[in-house]
Amino acid sequence: MRPTIPVRDNGTPLPRQVEMIDVSPRDGLQNEPVLVSVDKKKELILRLSKAGFRRIETTSFVHPKWVLQMADAEAIVSYCNQLGITYITLTPNLKALERALAADVPQIAVFIGASNAFNQKNVNRTTDESLAECEPLFARAKKRGVFVRAYVSTVWHCPYQGSVSYDEVDHVVKRFVDLGADEIDLGDTNGQAHPQEVFERCQSLKEAYPEMPFVGHFHDTSKLALANVYAALLAGIDRFDASTGGLGGCPFSPGATGNVATEDVLAMLDKMGIHTGIDLHAETVSFARSLSTRI
Amino acid sequence: MRPTIPVRDNGTPLPRQVEMIDVSPRDGLQNEPVLVSVDKKKELILRLSKAGFRRIETTSFVHPKWVLQMADAEAIVSYCNQLGITYITLTPNLKALERALAADVPQIAVFIGASNAFNQKNVNRTTDESLAECEPLFARAKKRGVFVRAYVSTVWHCPYQGSVSYDEVDHVVKRFVDLGADEIDLGDTNGQAHPQEVFERCQSLKEAYPEMPFVGHFHDTSKLALANVYAALLAGIDRFDASTGGLGGCPFSPGATGNVATEDVLAMLDKMGIHTGIDLHAETVSFARSLSTRI
Repeated sequence: MRPTIPVRDNGTPLPRQVEMIDVSPRDGLQNEPVLVSVDKKKELILRLSKAGFRRIETTSFVHPKWVLQMADAEAIVSYCNQLGITYITLTPNLKALERALAADVPQIAVFIGASNAFNQKNVNRTTDESLAECEPLFARAKKRGVFVRAYVSTVWHCPYQGSVSYDEVDHVVKRFVDLGADEIDLGDTNGQAHPQEVFERCQSLKEAYPEMPFVGHFHDTSKLALANVYAALLAGIDRFDASTGGLGGCPFSPGATGNVATEDVLAMLDKMGIHTGIDLHAETVSFARSLSTRI
Repeated sequence: MRPTIPVRDNGTPLPRQVEMIDVSPRDGLQNEPVLVSVDKKKELILRLSKAGFRRIETTSFVHPKWVLQMADAEAIVSYCNQLGITYITLTPNLKALERALAADVPQIAVFIGASNAFNQKNVNRTTDESLAECEPLFARAKKRGVFVRAYVSTVWHCPYQGSVSYDEVDHVVKRFVDLGADEIDLGDTNGQAHPQEVFERCQSLKEAYPEMPFVGHFHDTSKLALANVYAALLAGIDRFDASTGGLGGCPFSPGATGNVATEDVLAMLDKMGIHTGIDLHAETVSFARSLSTRI
């Protein structure tokens, strides 16, 4: 219930520039049932890096028995290192982290559901068990100087428990902050959030943790992703995940459709005069969509 | 450049309740190339009135040589009077108004493009010529005690001239206020507005004309209609036009796709806890869509 919007230095409530992080190679493809070849993934990553994304979430070191689509993580990472780009890889546990470190990744990501019910279904652990497991993981990553992105899933709603409270979210965020996360990514995992609660929760978190960079991660299940990006912008969020072509969805989140499409967010930001430095060609959008059997 | 959002009496920037005006029978169907039967139009209106819309824009007294789809205006109005509902009919000129008054309509609507280029293409008159023609029209309608809705088209962008300035909009709004409009409807006619400019222009107009009820009328051409409704809500707009099934588009506005779908706006408002009093059944949405050859 915070009714005013702070003025930023350009006299409007909106940031001057926004960092867009494309997550199509990882979040976009992880739920794709047909395996996409390493060559096609490389082409997607190359096209995205040429489009100007400063960071791309390229793969996950999840065990292949859970997500076979990501079994080629080492090959993808090797290619990313060769390209010299900055990229993020998901490392859901210590074993995954060791693989990522051995492959010399610059940035890792971990995720925990603010909803205990979701976290249980997703990784068969309570939220607190997952938080405890994060301790050695963060310590190891930080010791190696690796940037840590910390995802909070189900920040507003959970497909199993319904509404998620601010306290549940804050419980995870606080721990991530204490552990030394470099950025915290706020996920509307099943795409049920409405813009006003996005605005309010983002603003509350920004006020509680003014030094922490937050990222908005929205799914378009309810057609509200762009409204939610706008609401998050009003709350001062200036980093957003999106997936080229709208690829994606969460395999463990029933009813979750694709991530908000990068090209849609870029079009809105461009209309608003917000700089991103991205020039995403229509052919790259078509190429991304051609990788999915579900679009 | 107005960076703060006023607090309303419920402690949030959002209105407690919103009036939704369904425009599918008029704005939704006017551009439909295949004639829809009077019976089907009656069924749509009946379904909408049962859904709880307090006002429906049901037809237009435009000359049939321009919009043949609306040639049955008298039959539709007779049915609306029989039903005892409150409804709006478009009356683009004095002749149309006389037909509407003869048919005993409770509310009329006129429209003028804030963009001179648009108004020229649309009705072959300058904006000022159209405003001059409004004078006797308003006088006649007010004398008969008829409620006058005044549409401003191209409030943010014009398909012919591009951006539309606040002064161009204010020029029309001021005249409508002086003529005694009962509400002023702000149209993003070609669906090119972004939420921040919607917020700013709505807030400026609300500040300049605090007694005037404004209506938001958005098209989803750029996928931003819901974000724009949210932005308008933040600026205190509490009346919105929408079209069940997303029927519509403007025949004189190249590239304009459908009006924002009523069911999408209702879903967002419902999530936000904003009362509308509408219970729109999925079968009514399907029925509306079945009337269009373009969906």
